[in-house]
Amino acid sequence: MLIGGEHRRTVWLAEDGRTVATFDQTRLPHELPVLTLERLADAAHAIRAMKVRGAPLIGAIAAYGVALAMRADPSDAALDEACATLGATRPTAVNLRWALERMRAVLAPLAPTEREARAYAEAAAICEEDVAVNRAIGERGLPLIEAAARRKRPGEPVNILTHCNAGWLATIDWGTATAPIYLAHRAGIAVHVWVDETRPRNQGAAITAFELGQEGVPHTVIADNAGGHLMRRGMVDLCLVGTDRVARNGDVANKIGTYLKALAAFDNAVPFYVALPSSTIDWRLADGSAIPIEERAGEELALVSGRTAAGRFETVRVTPEGSPCGNWAFDVTPARLVTALITERGVCPASEAGLLSLFPERAAA
Amino acid sequence: MLIGGEHRRTVWLAEDGRTVATFDQTRLPHELPVLTLERLADAAHAIRAMKVRGAPLIGAIAAYGVALAMRADPSDAALDEACATLGATRPTAVNLRWALERMRAVLAPLAPTEREARAYAEAAAICEEDVAVNRAIGERGLPLIEAAARRKRPGEPVNILTHCNAGWLATIDWGTATAPIYLAHRAGIAVHVWVDETRPRNQGAAITAFELGQEGVPHTVIADNAGGHLMRRGMVDLCLVGTDRVARNGDVANKIGTYLKALAAFDNAVPFYVALPSSTIDWRLADGSAIPIEERAGEELALVSGRTAAGRFETVRVTPEGSPCGNWAFDVTPARLVTALITERGVCPASEAGLLSLFPERAAA
Repeated sequence: MLIGGEHRRTVWLAEDGRTVATFDQTRLPHELPVLTLERLADAAHAIRAMKVRGAPLIGAIAAYGVALAMRADPSDAALDEACATLGATRPTAVNLRWALERMRAVLAPLAPTEREARAYAEAAAICEEDVAVNRAIGERGLPLIEAAARRKRPGEPVNILTHCNAGWLATIDWGTATAPIYLAHRAGIAVHVWVDETRPRNQGAAITAFELGQEGVPHTVIADNAGGHLMRRGMVDLCLVGTDRVARNGDVANKIGTYLKALAAFDNAVPFYVALPSSTIDWRLADGSAIPIEERAGEELALVSGRTAAGRFETVRVTPEGSPCGNWAFDVTPARLVTALITERGVCPASEAGLLSLFPERAAA
Repeated sequence: MLIGGEHRRTVWLAEDGRTVATFDQTRLPHELPVLTLERLADAAHAIRAMKVRGAPLIGAIAAYGVALAMRADPSDAALDEACATLGATRPTAVNLRWALERMRAVLAPLAPTEREARAYAEAAAICEEDVAVNRAIGERGLPLIEAAARRKRPGEPVNILTHCNAGWLATIDWGTATAPIYLAHRAGIAVHVWVDETRPRNQGAAITAFELGQEGVPHTVIADNAGGHLMRRGMVDLCLVGTDRVARNGDVANKIGTYLKALAAFDNAVPFYVALPSSTIDWRLADGSAIPIEERAGEELALVSGRTAAGRFETVRVTPEGSPCGNWAFDVTPARLVTALITERGVCPASEAGLLSLFPERAAA
């Protein structure tokens, strides 16, 4: 997608062909500096400190983290350590585990001398597949926006509410929830996106709004509190979000607050769509109740960072010094509130039967 | 209630007996400077700029604003102007209109020379009545918390979720939603309050958390996004919020985002209570659909203020410069999601029949 009018992806290799380059997303929406990763520890830190975030991008960075580890030491012990270190950085995103298992499966049988080159090749393949999958999600989801557009009066945009960032900065390119939106916008369909701020880390205000602005997609940032009111007033045609993990029954783990928007959508008969690459499906989980929900430091809520009018980056405290803060990063939206899942293979009901209709190879024998 | 261990109210007269003193609440939770109001324009500005906020406190400041206007000029024209100016400061709070109508009703029939003294007396009466009403709300609501406490294991606190600030800083003393909590805490019942941050103006993080901390009530600040997750996990025993306007059928206008919490409470069979003085009931409104919802400047969402680690007050931008922000200040929670209303006369279902059971004098002839 576009940054300053130039086409960029979120992960690439530096000129040496081995150093991994990505963007440090923590200064968005004001700055987007390049971040280079030389060692396993750099990759683990980038994920843990959320300099990179978004389930598919985390998976890709973890894969390259394994490659960086193999570059330094291609032993079995180093492979084990890399997978353990990276696997412990974020507990909820299933792509992280998926990417690490994939890397281990291709690397473990190899002689150590073959591992570095293969690790880079596999990480690159994960990235290419992500781009193709997200483009396919966009194509599968586009008809839903086209259908909504046909129900609007001429000149009225389709109003789409999204939560957090499931955009191209969360993936390698296109994004998941944003892919249908970008394709619709490029196809000349009038769209307008309500961007949930997404406290406590403000991924909507800082990242999704930035992305949409760079692509020229009309949008409005709103407080996380506002979506219910907008839906009651008929100002939302559909909700479209990403996910960090989908259970076999269609329950959806996504950024904290997603469940509240799904409730409001259900209460107002607004379609609630979840876009996902199939790597996000955790086929081993019967339902969402067992999805671990990451608790992060309360400081993420207490301290807000941004740029002052004078151009300085500052961090300000918004809570009393003595007040504890709770910070759960995700919630689980029950499948009953999800209108449909948008995958790279097509759109299906949020149910085991729906998922198996698209992924029959996953049916139990 | 207590500030620094000292009992304070939110409105008092300075030593001259005429200058009105209150707190400037915009630097909370870090500072709470005294704000003196000398003229009508000071009172109007304090309300419009939200230096004072909360429906009952706004009503009291508006009443004193009329008194300040009468002090300067007790003419009919000045009375008209004062009511018009103050009435235009905030569109949603019905207490504002109620207080102004009450002031006009007592002042208009008087000779101009009698108006100043009577205006101060009436404003003081409004304040005294507010304190008594809130204390009564606390006593009426306390049994609901006591009942929840009986269902907890020994030593487990009653977990109460609240949104925005319906505390004593929103009233003259006690608060509305907080009054039952403060009484429960003083009665030795273990309570713990989940404090919604309440974006975009952070009244929960900045004001409710401050209040609870000053009173020593255990509490945890959470993102507005978190309450649904907590309710799904059984971590909320009851929700307790205030309101800016209640329609005759029990529909409740309150701070934006209240509706989302009510949906989650309903979905998880968590009782959702709304505490209100009866002055908040708009008997002329059949339902909540006609309640005007104030739209405020998008900058309130884009800019976040707080204190840096170095002790400076700074305001930082959290959205891209080019991204518009939408800022609706309230939403309407339909009566079907409200377990009960807590008024100074007792607890009743959120319905016309329920309200009329407590306020039979309001039944149509």
